[in-house]
Amino acid sequence: DDEHIVCCKFWGLGSDGTVGANKNTVEIINSHTPKYAQAYFEYDAKKSFGVTKSHLRFGDRPIRGSYYVKAADFIGCHNETYIAKYDIAGELKQGGILLLNCSWTPEETPSRLPAHVRAALAAKKAKLYVIDAVKIAESLGLGSHINTVLQAAFFALSGVIPADEAAGYMKDAARKTYFAKGEEVVARNVAAIDAGLTAASEVAIDPAWASETGNGKRETGNDGGRVNAPAVVSGILDPINAQKGDDLPVSAFKGYEDGTIELGLTAWEKRGIATHVPVWDPTKCVQCNHCSLVCPHAVIRPFLLDADEAARAPEDFKTLPATGAKDLRFTLQVSALDCTGCGVCANSCLAKDKALTMHSVHEEGVMPLPAHWDFALSLSDKSTRFAPTNNKAVQFRQPLVEFSAACAGCGETPYAKLLTQLFGDRVYWANATGCSQAWGSPMPGIPYTVNKRGFGPAWTNSLFENNAEFALGMALSVKQQRALAKQNAEALLAALAGDSVTEPPSLAAALQAWLAAFDDFDASRAAADALIPALQAYLGQGSGAQSPAVWSLANALLAASDQLAKKTFWMFGGDGWAYDIGFGGLDHVLASGENLNVLIVDTEVYSNTGGQSSKATPIGAVAQFANAGKRTQKKDLGRIFMSYGNVYVAQVAMGADPNQLLKALREAESYDGPSLVIAYAPCQAHGIRRGMSGTQQEMKDAVAAGYWPLYRFDPRKKDAPFTLDSKAPTMAYEDFLKGETRFLALTRTFPDNAKTLFAAGAEHARAQREALERLQQTQGSQA
Amino acid sequence: DDEHIVCCKFWGLGSDGTVGANKNTVEIINSHTPKYAQAYFEYDAKKSFGVTKSHLRFGDRPIRGSYYVKAADFIGCHNETYIAKYDIAGELKQGGILLLNCSWTPEETPSRLPAHVRAALAAKKAKLYVIDAVKIAESLGLGSHINTVLQAAFFALSGVIPADEAAGYMKDAARKTYFAKGEEVVARNVAAIDAGLTAASEVAIDPAWASETGNGKRETGNDGGRVNAPAVVSGILDPINAQKGDDLPVSAFKGYEDGTIELGLTAWEKRGIATHVPVWDPTKCVQCNHCSLVCPHAVIRPFLLDADEAARAPEDFKTLPATGAKDLRFTLQVSALDCTGCGVCANSCLAKDKALTMHSVHEEGVMPLPAHWDFALSLSDKSTRFAPTNNKAVQFRQPLVEFSAACAGCGETPYAKLLTQLFGDRVYWANATGCSQAWGSPMPGIPYTVNKRGFGPAWTNSLFENNAEFALGMALSVKQQRALAKQNAEALLAALAGDSVTEPPSLAAALQAWLAAFDDFDASRAAADALIPALQAYLGQGSGAQSPAVWSLANALLAASDQLAKKTFWMFGGDGWAYDIGFGGLDHVLASGENLNVLIVDTEVYSNTGGQSSKATPIGAVAQFANAGKRTQKKDLGRIFMSYGNVYVAQVAMGADPNQLLKALREAESYDGPSLVIAYAPCQAHGIRRGMSGTQQEMKDAVAAGYWPLYRFDPRKKDAPFTLDSKAPTMAYEDFLKGETRFLALTRTFPDNAKTLFAAGAEHARAQREALERLQQTQGSQA
Repeated sequence: DDEHIVCCKFWGLGSDGTVGANKNTVEIINSHTPKYAQAYFEYDAKKSFGVTKSHLRFGDRPIRGSYYVKAADFIGCHNETYIAKYDIAGELKQGGILLLNCSWTPEETPSRLPAHVRAALAAKKAKLYVIDAVKIAESLGLGSHINTVLQAAFFALSGVIPADEAAGYMKDAARKTYFAKGEEVVARNVAAIDAGLTAASEVAIDPAWASETGNGKRETGNDGGRVNAPAVVSGILDPINAQKGDDLPVSAFKGYEDGTIELGLTAWEKRGIATHVPVWDPTKCVQCNHCSLVCPHAVIRPFLLDADEAARAPEDFKTLPATGAKDLRFTLQVSALDCTGCGVCANSCLAKDKALTMHSVHEEGVMPLPAHWDFALSLSDKSTRFAPTNNKAVQFRQPLVEFSAACAGCGETPYAKLLTQLFGDRVYWANATGCSQAWGSPMPGIPYTVNKRGFGPAWTNSLFENNAEFALGMALSVKQQRALAKQNAEALLAALAGDSVTEPPSLAAALQAWLAAFDDFDASRAAADALIPALQAYLGQGSGAQSPAVWSLANALLAASDQLAKKTFWMFGGDGWAYDIGFGGLDHVLASGENLNVLIVDTEVYSNTGGQSSKATPIGAVAQFANAGKRTQKKDLGRIFMSYGNVYVAQVAMGADPNQLLKALREAESYDGPSLVIAYAPCQAHGIRRGMSGTQQEMKDAVAAGYWPLYRFDPRKKDAPFTLDSKAPTMAYEDFLKGETRFLALTRTFPDNAKTLFAAGAEHARAQREALERLQQTQGSQA
Repeated sequence: DDEHIVCCKFWGLGSDGTVGANKNTVEIINSHTPKYAQAYFEYDAKKSFGVTKSHLRFGDRPIRGSYYVKAADFIGCHNETYIAKYDIAGELKQGGILLLNCSWTPEETPSRLPAHVRAALAAKKAKLYVIDAVKIAESLGLGSHINTVLQAAFFALSGVIPADEAAGYMKDAARKTYFAKGEEVVARNVAAIDAGLTAASEVAIDPAWASETGNGKRETGNDGGRVNAPAVVSGILDPINAQKGDDLPVSAFKGYEDGTIELGLTAWEKRGIATHVPVWDPTKCVQCNHCSLVCPHAVIRPFLLDADEAARAPEDFKTLPATGAKDLRFTLQVSALDCTGCGVCANSCLAKDKALTMHSVHEEGVMPLPAHWDFALSLSDKSTRFAPTNNKAVQFRQPLVEFSAACAGCGETPYAKLLTQLFGDRVYWANATGCSQAWGSPMPGIPYTVNKRGFGPAWTNSLFENNAEFALGMALSVKQQRALAKQNAEALLAALAGDSVTEPPSLAAALQAWLAAFDDFDASRAAADALIPALQAYLGQGSGAQSPAVWSLANALLAASDQLAKKTFWMFGGDGWAYDIGFGGLDHVLASGENLNVLIVDTEVYSNTGGQSSKATPIGAVAQFANAGKRTQKKDLGRIFMSYGNVYVAQVAMGADPNQLLKALREAESYDGPSLVIAYAPCQAHGIRRGMSGTQQEMKDAVAAGYWPLYRFDPRKKDAPFTLDSKAPTMAYEDFLKGETRFLALTRTFPDNAKTLFAAGAEHARAQREALERLQQTQGSQA
């Protein structure tokens, strides 16, 4: 147990350096003192703005506790907002110390704390200290690096070892770490240590707080006015998001034993994590809907209002006349509480004079009213008035993946979102392990959702090594079920013609229409929607009226109503799956000739596990296992699968050519055979120098530099299956490389390698362009 | 136990129908009588001429024995030669019945039996019957189908159920089975049943035989005059080949605990299974050595004799003056006891008037004397006089895989053999599961062997799914070991220059020569052979003479003497491995850029497990899981790996262009990167209509018909890596298909499919040719 052991706990953001500082603390104790130290680090499953907890123990004897710290002598809360959101004070031991990093003075702090926090502190006879590490770090030129200040403050307050001794070790470590970066950087860190030692101020605890009760609830941010939340939200989602998931009893999961869970749960999270959100200026908007297309989190969406709807819109609900539909008005709405503030929308705004600009959430009038968003969601669907043949039209369709925990500016999610807008109500979605699975199901924050009819992706996840086989199994099952339904429909149609009883004429017509639309994704939905009531009406006449054989056929067909509308099967995953670990299975499934589709979001690296090199990593890029730059060319997956002849293959990049992307997805779905769409997905791991708000521009550059060619190979066009969609390069290959740290770093660490490998990459790109142009000449058709 | 149970055992050839007949017997008993029946079938690991045993039990109560029959009431020995080779009579119960299928009359039989068989029959008070099922089947127009006759004889003699009742069931089954083949075939089988019921004749057993002892040994065929056989031969090989492997105690395997075993064990088997063997006519021979190249079992080999050797050649040892070497004489020798009689050598003889013809082993003077073979093997190696740049020269090199249990006419083994002639003394051989592994290590019949220095392939086998990774591990290990040796050699060379003691000047020269030859397969062997004695001589001066650092470097280098000569790493396996199950790993390993080589023997089907379709199976071919003809094109593995740019790729077919094959293997080995050689390997499973003696001609046709293009892609030739080696087709694609049952069968079973799929195949071959010609034009270099 933890007797005679000093237990410490630290709450930080995944990206604020808390974990690194704590690792350094343990190293100091273990290297320089006779004490024993132990550390566990606890991460949540969110890719961005996730909570990270460090559990540290120190003692004079070996530490054997193999569990997290539950009652702490010392807690560091490194994020001001956490103290109200999470039950941090409740985790203190009697007489424990809480160090809170915040912008509050000691005097104002009590009033800033919720009552339940004050009560816990008083009941535990705790000591409370505040420190403004953000301000100190900024003032010392350390930017947002608050970890050194807070580590020093920990040593000063916790007394694990004498504070001056600890500071000495910290300074030694800082000198070692920053030596190469120059004396100035060392000096700044030394100053941060000195400041941290003394900067914390004690806040007096009033014993009277112990009797406060507040409303008994922790603040969980603006909940957007929850209406009709399903039980899973308060039963499972809220406790887990409050970092109390480990306290849930098994019985809380009753009903979830089969592994299925409701979709659309992220809509209940309302994380409120953005510091800046987009503000729309209708006077400048050109209604292109491009912002909606590129938004990684489905936070910004266009809506159309008819006259009635416009008349009952809430106050200040901005609209303008819809272009291309005289009877409608257009609006653009932002769900600011679901926004990450990445800025991709504003950066991608196609209006000459930007109609979207990013503003601090603290600015007056910036945060939109949740009621506006709710009203927009309640509007009737007008998207069916437009064919889904251009991105503007498609953006009026409801995205069926939203508010995921993907990184701000993620390059993967916009592809998934677009796919759900096209096919999401009937897609079987086999998601391979990796980032896409991490943001796709960080239990219970499920971003995949349903439309108003309750239809959405049948999402499920499998391993790197068998995702394709997994998808194949689902596809074969549904193929059999639909084939049987077709057979029953044909038999029923034939039987109806011979049946003595006059059937409602609509049934035969409905059957014929359905059979004709059997393999058409959109038409089969409408035909199925007509057939089901026709079957119900027919069967409503009672079993006496028809022959038993006909009766039973009609019943069997109705029982298969789930499968009457055509389904589409998509494997989804990154390059680690498709190029590497799952490639053998992918190859086997595509070679089978079955009608399955693949969407690869190619980040050219194992993003989820920390940036290991994959066969998709381009030559010269720095990655784990390729620290001196990858020495081999990127695997040409498209060319490999084009060699089969019967596989539809497309290479796309949303930011470079969204219309080509849309064509590719629609062609892939409609092709009655295997299809593969390889999508360029910029990633945090690339170190994009223009920032993650520029991921769409980065794609444009990748194509302009000949780094990422765009093409489509459609086996239906017998003699001319190939279309080269990207133009001859207009940007130097190496200029593109200069925009990303994954390449640029090599020029500093291994300049010779950089020279050779970048040149080889450029030469490869040139040869590839030549080969694709030759393909266009010999087997090409025009876009 | 087996009390009250009738135990029966049948010894047959894998291919003689014994198993099928016994399955039918069990079906009859189970379907038509209240009796219980059980059957186990026991196969050995040999791909050709293997022994198959059936273990049948019949009783009035459920049969629970879960082991083979050890003491039988009835034994059927379906092969005349087995009675002497195996201890069959010893497996009878007291009073049991032995039915022997042979060409002997009852009268002559006792004298034909070895003494130990007579003794066992008498001691067991057994009954012996003889039957000439071969003669009966032939006389009834059933060819070699002896199983029906023998099944009827079993029912007549065993009394398991009344014979006439059994005959009735057998006839019913025959009518059902052969109905579609016409009344005549049915009638023949019915006649065979009737004949079998009465054809067996009893042979009187003389009780006096019981005291005969013979020499106490069973006959195991001509052992070729064993000299210096290692202990493993009598201790393990002989008992297993005598079908007594299950009787070996664990202690018999002492020394083999680590899974390694001596190479070259098949040379001790001398199976003597050929009914026809090649006879050489020196007067017609053109000394092309083509027969030796194509022999699947390394049974026919050319040798060169100098004057001394010619002078002491045994009597009747035929030679003729060697062309191209005035001081030598040429001979061609056949190890007839190791021959399968496939006839590929004679069929492939390039002499206008064939110098090789197949003759029955019973013809006078046909069987060569084993002493001639032994003398030939004792001759000195002259192959080093010729550069291995043409197949004639290479055939004077010792093959290091010989006398395998592969099928007669096997298309895989000649490739493996050629590779061992080029690199076999230093090859790491990672053999994937499949046929190549089945003939490569049917324990303990190891066909891989060693040269006179004791060097041979380091053969080992891994799974379908990880063979490439397995090879990579070995390659990386040796790479490290050799890199260390190189480093030590460089350090030693530097140290020698500064060493005060005068070293033998030869060591520095030897070190320099070895360093220069480090990456050259042939030169590094010679350099290592010179370096090792130089190191020994240097160290022989004693440790006092040199500085300790130099002494220790020299010692370390000598300790690495195993790795001084360059090694080569080859993965070996079939299409089931390379195209399908192991493809993911193969792709990953080749993409790594490491220096490994792959030889795929592409039989276009899972040969070892019974002919399941693989991704290498061509469109239109009938295979398991593709009974209506494969519907997709063959996967283009070569094109896939050419897409990497840094992988050497060649597609070869020995029978079509052996020189191109030789070039490819040598280029693959010498390329300092990954190499892939895809070799067309005709197989029993193809149903080659010209027979397995024509596998080499079949390869020629495959290339002539454009079915199997030949090419090489060598990354070293920067701008012109590609060479198209096969000419424009001169034979119609469909004419090639007509020569093989795997295609032809479809024209009968699914004629519409045959039409469509064959046409699609032809069109694909045309388009492929066009694409390869385009590649030749744009990136081609001349052969």
